[in-house]
Amino acid sequence: MAEQMHWARWGNPDHRADLPESAWKLLEFAFGPRQDTPGVALSEVRVAAPALNLAVLDAFRGVLGPDGVSVDRDARIQHTRGKSTPDLLRIRSGDVSDAPDAVLRPRSHSDVVKLLELCSEHRVAVVPYGGGTSVVGGLAARRDGYAGVVALDMAGLNALADLDTVSGVATLGAGLLGPQAEALLAEHGYTLGHFPQSFEYASIGGFAATRSSGQASSGYGRFDAMVVGLTVATPVGTLTLGSSPSSAAGPDLRELVLGSEGAFGVITEVALRVRPLPEERIYETWRFPTFTAGRDAMRALVQAGLRPTVLRLSDEAETAINLAKPSDVGGRSGGGCLMVTGYEGEVAQNSRTRTAVTGALSAAGGDCLGAEDGEQWAEGRFHGPYLRDILLDHGVLVETLETATFWSNVGELYSSVKHALESALAEQDTPAIVLCHISHVYETGASLYFTVAARQLEDPIAQWDAAKKAASDAMISSGATITHHHAVGRDHKPWFAQEIGPVGVEILRAVKERIDPNGIMNPGVLIP
Amino acid sequence: MAEQMHWARWGNPDHRADLPESAWKLLEFAFGPRQDTPGVALSEVRVAAPALNLAVLDAFRGVLGPDGVSVDRDARIQHTRGKSTPDLLRIRSGDVSDAPDAVLRPRSHSDVVKLLELCSEHRVAVVPYGGGTSVVGGLAARRDGYAGVVALDMAGLNALADLDTVSGVATLGAGLLGPQAEALLAEHGYTLGHFPQSFEYASIGGFAATRSSGQASSGYGRFDAMVVGLTVATPVGTLTLGSSPSSAAGPDLRELVLGSEGAFGVITEVALRVRPLPEERIYETWRFPTFTAGRDAMRALVQAGLRPTVLRLSDEAETAINLAKPSDVGGRSGGGCLMVTGYEGEVAQNSRTRTAVTGALSAAGGDCLGAEDGEQWAEGRFHGPYLRDILLDHGVLVETLETATFWSNVGELYSSVKHALESALAEQDTPAIVLCHISHVYETGASLYFTVAARQLEDPIAQWDAAKKAASDAMISSGATITHHHAVGRDHKPWFAQEIGPVGVEILRAVKERIDPNGIMNPGVLIP
Repeated sequence: MAEQMHWARWGNPDHRADLPESAWKLLEFAFGPRQDTPGVALSEVRVAAPALNLAVLDAFRGVLGPDGVSVDRDARIQHTRGKSTPDLLRIRSGDVSDAPDAVLRPRSHSDVVKLLELCSEHRVAVVPYGGGTSVVGGLAARRDGYAGVVALDMAGLNALADLDTVSGVATLGAGLLGPQAEALLAEHGYTLGHFPQSFEYASIGGFAATRSSGQASSGYGRFDAMVVGLTVATPVGTLTLGSSPSSAAGPDLRELVLGSEGAFGVITEVALRVRPLPEERIYETWRFPTFTAGRDAMRALVQAGLRPTVLRLSDEAETAINLAKPSDVGGRSGGGCLMVTGYEGEVAQNSRTRTAVTGALSAAGGDCLGAEDGEQWAEGRFHGPYLRDILLDHGVLVETLETATFWSNVGELYSSVKHALESALAEQDTPAIVLCHISHVYETGASLYFTVAARQLEDPIAQWDAAKKAASDAMISSGATITHHHAVGRDHKPWFAQEIGPVGVEILRAVKERIDPNGIMNPGVLIP
Repeated sequence: MAEQMHWARWGNPDHRADLPESAWKLLEFAFGPRQDTPGVALSEVRVAAPALNLAVLDAFRGVLGPDGVSVDRDARIQHTRGKSTPDLLRIRSGDVSDAPDAVLRPRSHSDVVKLLELCSEHRVAVVPYGGGTSVVGGLAARRDGYAGVVALDMAGLNALADLDTVSGVATLGAGLLGPQAEALLAEHGYTLGHFPQSFEYASIGGFAATRSSGQASSGYGRFDAMVVGLTVATPVGTLTLGSSPSSAAGPDLRELVLGSEGAFGVITEVALRVRPLPEERIYETWRFPTFTAGRDAMRALVQAGLRPTVLRLSDEAETAINLAKPSDVGGRSGGGCLMVTGYEGEVAQNSRTRTAVTGALSAAGGDCLGAEDGEQWAEGRFHGPYLRDILLDHGVLVETLETATFWSNVGELYSSVKHALESALAEQDTPAIVLCHISHVYETGASLYFTVAARQLEDPIAQWDAAKKAASDAMISSGATITHHHAVGRDHKPWFAQEIGPVGVEILRAVKERIDPNGIMNPGVLIP
């Protein structure tokens, strides 16, 4: 696997994806004939001259050596923004106005500390850069008022620094990408169990900084729940946290760093709870008559303490689309909603959980369809984002967004966000297909993840902005969170401010001003 | 049950406790003949005149009415400090120098907001007062630089404000004591499952503000893990948090309020995950040959995902003392370490867990002793603190302290804290009995809870200070936390500062200065 994504598309540049002809037929039926809307070629992209002067660059080289500082065009384009649909639309049009002036490649915590001192001194904005997978504008720092912007590419902090097999704790460099971390742990028989859709290109530091949540969160927990310790370089020095799994020694400052999106400092090392590699992995699918019935069954499971490792449920529309395979015509896809259950662990434990879950889901009206579709889901679990590029190539606007709330509010939230998306796009004469699934469950609530597709207008960014705004407003008026696992970035800031209120905003500003007095850390991101 | 504790002792003033004669024999053997060291009578206690002027008191009465403001002697003495052994020793000697100048009794969030405005304006220090059970000096605010000190008695905020049975979330007034909260929930068939030793007199707000952890934490989780939402009155306004179970919307500010010990504001309402009342409760005891063997068995359980509701293990010394009943001479107490396992829940679920736990503990070398001693433990679970008063009455110094660390460090931490306590007291010619148990377990680590007894010297406060300092130094040099569930208060501040480091301290100060600009919130507590 390539270590860097395609400059203007998701994922491995060598990966070739396409939609099945049946899916194209469905899209043409919905949105009209397929169009060609290709992006510009890399060679056509014009990048502004780097803003940083030679003295500053030389100071960086003094810390990192000549190879640690790149000002070349390709490196700067490569580190421009993240991978939201608006990010892709901008870069496909040749807009790299958010390109950093230089890419810095530290190899240690102490490199990072020194770079932050220099950047603070010279008022250079710093964007901590892991795998570049942000979908919320988390990598597009504000330029105004700064001498320049640097991307701090964390790939060089890639060690398994410690593995405490007694405690089940691994200390990992923040720059490790998901597969690299899993490979290092697998050598010793361990896994993190953190598999978000971004897994192949997202980094350990990024998972922590954005409170990522993986597809196996039902069993392994969210990423923030795995974190037991953090090392953070801030402009005023190093913060080291985590002297025990839990503590009553004041506020839990780990929880202030988790989700801080580079606005307070750079996470350089993360101590994480790890688990033995599973002896066995089983994935099954179930059909429920309605989304509501499936949702109630999920709730009953987790409230009874029954947690398969994977637990997700597609609504009627997502079920129909995902099963739109030629072999399914007139077959299994006969309506209803598909649930995936996965069991990863020891054989005996899997068997105990699976027996209890199977009993509970059957009692709740579920119909077990066996392992075939479940295995297929597991194989294709990281492929979704590649399809977005294909759709963007052919006149289809597609994007995802997500939220979470308490169980009693899930139905209302689902209706209001779906309605907001459909109305906002219908008003632009581009009626949308809106799909939804529940993929993260808690005793007290669940997440909702929406996928939206519509015919592209001439200005698809403005087109999407209207839909996104309507959906975000609907989330906040429903009392839900603006994001369950994508983070705040630039895109969610107005709604984030509403969510935490003016006192919450002041708390974040106070922390920011104290430990980043020159405001160099990812300016414009997170803090309203 | 009385709603207020004895002014100078733990718990219900009508409760009569005594130690069995066998225990007195053992203590006389260890510490020499029993002495009489009674405290002063309430009538002998001299309280300074209240410092607050009439205009300020009238302003408080304007908000609360005349009944909401007490300046009488008994109310002020009743609200003096908490219930650590040094607190008890001070008040037993007649020292009430930390008595508040007035006791304010708000009945709503809006009362609290108004009082904080007044206190901010008049620079009056505010001590949020729940049940008065602090054992870390959390209720002894600094006086210097303030016009006076008020205790904000939260007992009037005692509503079950909302019960969302679909989500399993109850919203409780911060002033509810443990039994009151459980009684309100039990009417609807629910429980919090939070039963710390302080349960009978500690409050919902206090549990949150100090990150309390109960004796059933293995099954129900720590109190902080139950919190899904918080309403906080701060001097700059109201902070309302918790729009979903988990979120990626920035740092989790709930985790900044949890453990904030009244230093940022007053928690007025807490939304908590509740569970159905258990159908069944089973408590059993097990014997392991050594503390190490029992500890390894506990670790194996939780790392295999097997969680009894209660799981605790006494070391050899605590086992011997706790079983020092006449009936046990030559009987069951034949060495080894006692473990208590408890199962609270649905019959089917209890049976599943108990079967698996029983298999695992037997395989780990445990010997099941059945239900008798387990039931006895459950019955006596809140009685321990009463015995401390009896011992203090008779020349014995006794106190507890606790910490937590990762599993690989538990053995080293145990030895070093025990050694520190023993040495520090032996050096004063008062050799100590030191007992220990593990009562809170995590996948990655566990807590250690020590009970220390020695003959009282003439200045028992100085005597204990030396032991406490040695134990605290040992915790921090072992890389453990200074407190797992007692909080920071005044007593742990120097070690807390070491634990979170200078950047951590600056973060807390920045938050404090921003949302409590006049520094009125529990000054001297928590913030180093």
